[in-house]
Amino acid sequence: MIYKLIIAYDGTHYVGWQIQPNGNSIQAEIEGALSTFLKEEISIMGAGRTDAGVHALGQVAHFKTDQTVDPVRLIHALNGILPHDIRIKRVECVPDDFHARYSAKSKIYHYHLWLDGPIDPWIRLYRHRPKQKLSLPLLKKGAQEFVGKRDFSSFANAGSGAQSFTRTIYRLDVVAQEGGVRLEFEGDGFLYKMVRNIVGTLLEVATQKRKVEEIKSLLEAKDRTVAGIAAPARGLFLIKVNYHSALREKSSEQRSCPEAFQALSS
Amino acid sequence: MIYKLIIAYDGTHYVGWQIQPNGNSIQAEIEGALSTFLKEEISIMGAGRTDAGVHALGQVAHFKTDQTVDPVRLIHALNGILPHDIRIKRVECVPDDFHARYSAKSKIYHYHLWLDGPIDPWIRLYRHRPKQKLSLPLLKKGAQEFVGKRDFSSFANAGSGAQSFTRTIYRLDVVAQEGGVRLEFEGDGFLYKMVRNIVGTLLEVATQKRKVEEIKSLLEAKDRTVAGIAAPARGLFLIKVNYHSALREKSSEQRSCPEAFQALSS
Repeated sequence: MIYKLIIAYDGTHYVGWQIQPNGNSIQAEIEGALSTFLKEEISIMGAGRTDAGVHALGQVAHFKTDQTVDPVRLIHALNGILPHDIRIKRVECVPDDFHARYSAKSKIYHYHLWLDGPIDPWIRLYRHRPKQKLSLPLLKKGAQEFVGKRDFSSFANAGSGAQSFTRTIYRLDVVAQEGGVRLEFEGDGFLYKMVRNIVGTLLEVATQKRKVEEIKSLLEAKDRTVAGIAAPARGLFLIKVNYHSALREKSSEQRSCPEAFQALSS
Repeated sequence: MIYKLIIAYDGTHYVGWQIQPNGNSIQAEIEGALSTFLKEEISIMGAGRTDAGVHALGQVAHFKTDQTVDPVRLIHALNGILPHDIRIKRVECVPDDFHARYSAKSKIYHYHLWLDGPIDPWIRLYRHRPKQKLSLPLLKKGAQEFVGKRDFSSFANAGSGAQSFTRTIYRLDVVAQEGGVRLEFEGDGFLYKMVRNIVGTLLEVATQKRKVEEIKSLLEAKDRTVAGIAAPARGLFLIKVNYHSALREKSSEQRSCPEAFQALSS
């Protein structure tokens, strides 16, 4: 049986999603909780490896087990074991060929900027507050330069192990919200630190350190050293991972989920 | 010169607003920052003494000094000294008879309830999540029983040193928000733990442990032991303290603020 988890977390106190020798990771916490509850060694595969300090509203992971588990019971059990800064929002039974990472069709990330006066204390760990005043028209204009199918080599840090640097950004919207704006990224995939590197460059454009027209040549350079530095992790949220709806239909047909749990997991 | 501060804070890690022997208080942090910056011993008076764990978006305090200070410079200096969970949002020069507590006309408190599934990790310190399912119609009906001029003895904990227990609640609205609702209290003043005690009783009503009709007799009993237990501090925010607008007009007439700073502080 393959189970899909939808996970929210506050990344502040973690080294990131992925297990690392030098600190607590989200992945290790969830694998630990699953292994404790199911009394077997469980490994999980996440849809995206968020960095240290990056948060998630809708991270997705899957795991395999021969046991049959009631999704609702699993949510309660895991949330009872996990620290309060990691919450399992949903559990679904999925077809055997579901893979949290490779089956993903698109991902949505939001980057939150605080542009007002002193930042409200309760969101200080979830917003980046640029030191200089931004031009919103320039921010919006710059954002549109990244939309489309592009080689994002100039915006990818080494270490992702990616074979290709071509990705498609479907939209990059600047949306007003309390105290500032958020940048909504939707794309078929994102390279290592790509969102934060794009935001870093957009902040340079919006503070007139760089011209909007330069973005095109930055992309063409295919060289990480030419673009802006990464914006801080704290402003970034992995909001949602989208999958082909066919997966869901197939799921019902195949009845890969125990019948009793169909209603709960749909 | 009297200066008025508008302050936001995350109360999680404090013993409350007021200076206490057994831990860090918001008041002590701000007095320390002011004394450091102004190089004289400064005492502040707050509009309301929030409890341990209670937050504020718009707490108000005043202090007196013979020095003339640029409000904008003061904001920057204090926020540079204070811990990040306390932010000075605004500084104004006010007339000599301004008193943060006694000049207050009304106060607005919000109590935030999370009524959805697992609570989003980044707001876990700012929401109360009741264990049982609530009836929103009963919550709203119960809330209306508290609106008006009442003796709130049954909802006041000992320790406030209040002379009278009569207060007027102008409105107590139940407003839908992401993941749940907030209870918006506006009144001419609130007794020690009064908001949390009212919320505690309303939660009993909304979970059908107590009838709406009982609220009237609870109020009439004038006995703290009859009403429900206080709802947790984490859900409560002091949102705003309102003052008579005459104070502001008088301020301009009197020119109690240095002329150079009038524009900044208005």
